[in-house]
Amino acid sequence: MDKLHIVKIGGNVIENQETFLDFLKDYAALKGRKILVHGGGKEATQMAKKLGVSVEVIDGRRVTDANNLDIITMLYGGKLNKNIVAQLQALGCNSLGLSGADGNSVLAEKRPIKSIDFGFVGDLKEVNHSLFNLLLKEGISPVCCALSHDGSGQLLNTNADTIAATLASAMTPYYEVHLNYCFEKNGVLKDINDDDSIMPSMNKMEYNHLKSKGILHSGMLPKLHNCFIALKEGVKFVKIGSPKMITETGIYTQIIN
Amino acid sequence: MDKLHIVKIGGNVIENQETFLDFLKDYAALKGRKILVHGGGKEATQMAKKLGVSVEVIDGRRVTDANNLDIITMLYGGKLNKNIVAQLQALGCNSLGLSGADGNSVLAEKRPIKSIDFGFVGDLKEVNHSLFNLLLKEGISPVCCALSHDGSGQLLNTNADTIAATLASAMTPYYEVHLNYCFEKNGVLKDINDDDSIMPSMNKMEYNHLKSKGILHSGMLPKLHNCFIALKEGVKFVKIGSPKMITETGIYTQIIN
Repeated sequence: MDKLHIVKIGGNVIENQETFLDFLKDYAALKGRKILVHGGGKEATQMAKKLGVSVEVIDGRRVTDANNLDIITMLYGGKLNKNIVAQLQALGCNSLGLSGADGNSVLAEKRPIKSIDFGFVGDLKEVNHSLFNLLLKEGISPVCCALSHDGSGQLLNTNADTIAATLASAMTPYYEVHLNYCFEKNGVLKDINDDDSIMPSMNKMEYNHLKSKGILHSGMLPKLHNCFIALKEGVKFVKIGSPKMITETGIYTQIIN
Repeated sequence: MDKLHIVKIGGNVIENQETFLDFLKDYAALKGRKILVHGGGKEATQMAKKLGVSVEVIDGRRVTDANNLDIITMLYGGKLNKNIVAQLQALGCNSLGLSGADGNSVLAEKRPIKSIDFGFVGDLKEVNHSLFNLLLKEGISPVCCALSHDGSGQLLNTNADTIAATLASAMTPYYEVHLNYCFEKNGVLKDINDDDSIMPSMNKMEYNHLKSKGILHSGMLPKLHNCFIALKEGVKFVKIGSPKMITETGIYTQIIN
């Protein structure tokens, strides 16, 4: 089976232009089939402010109303996605940007309203493995932004970590899938206050132990949850680390069963 | 040879939400292989104003500086393109949005500076027929916005009429190509002041005659120029008319040799 690298890059890395360009160079140099999934960063908040669009936050989570969805679609589906693709083309990596609506690549449903209405937020239903296979076989690397659609004309703001994990799982029948979460740290820290306390690996038992002791950063929990699901679904390697981890020299935490 | 419809839709049509949704329904219902090329409309000017970005106009033509290019990329490559694709998916038309950077679909060079520097504006070099063929064969309809790239990381604002005509010419070896320019009039008018004076057809001689007499609207000249080039390059049918012209009931002017 051929290898397939799925690389998720977070907003904090994207915001630092120099780090991000370095990452794109490393990504372009990564051999074999690959898919990039990118988050957004703080530009949407800044743009909302400039345009006088209010941003509602409930329980620490942003509500995506119609105006904020437009901003996300403009910035992440448009400016960021298209510029990433143009840069990758310049670096010799034939890539193609996708929102979830494009080729019906990522289908979701609007999150049902329980106690809180998060607005136009998508809970993932399915990724279109045929489309990804079609492009990959042609040597084209898809670049996915964090937008899905509901199949009825509505774009939806969707968690990029979850898109990456679901995509990874969906591609396991066709490839030996490597899922890489790149973010601003070098891996999972044993001690939140010590950036050098990287765990070389972490299994489910350790995860549950650290979680119960409250040692893991709250932002890490859904990311790690996605990692364990991906492993269970047959993804071969799952790693969390710095953008450099897709090169030979990178540091990371490997997530294992 | 199979038919391929290439449909260009102008900014003025896009701005009228009702007309535009009607058009998308007609487009989705159009049988066979098809490609949509869309312009922009006035939203970029409004957004520039909101963001405090100045718009320079020289000789009646907009200059595309870096800030204006960002706005175009956000609005037309992002918001408009992705929403068109989401709507088409809802209408049962499997479509996929492309800027020129995506899959290297439309390659251009930055317009050389002669007396005027128009900024990040692209003069078309080549369309990637392999990519369009790959998608069309899979039953996927590409939706192109008016952005190209230079292959060196730079996105470029590019005339949508020219993209449509160049694309039409490039596809003639593989399809019987029908090129349709949809805009706010019902066709080419014999009398600018009479919307009912539609010419059912127009050949090169009539074009030259009307042009020399100053009867053609200045905005029509480059459009018609593109039409005659496309015909020369082997495009089978070239029509200019209202959005309804892609249905059985539409009125249009057929451009002939």
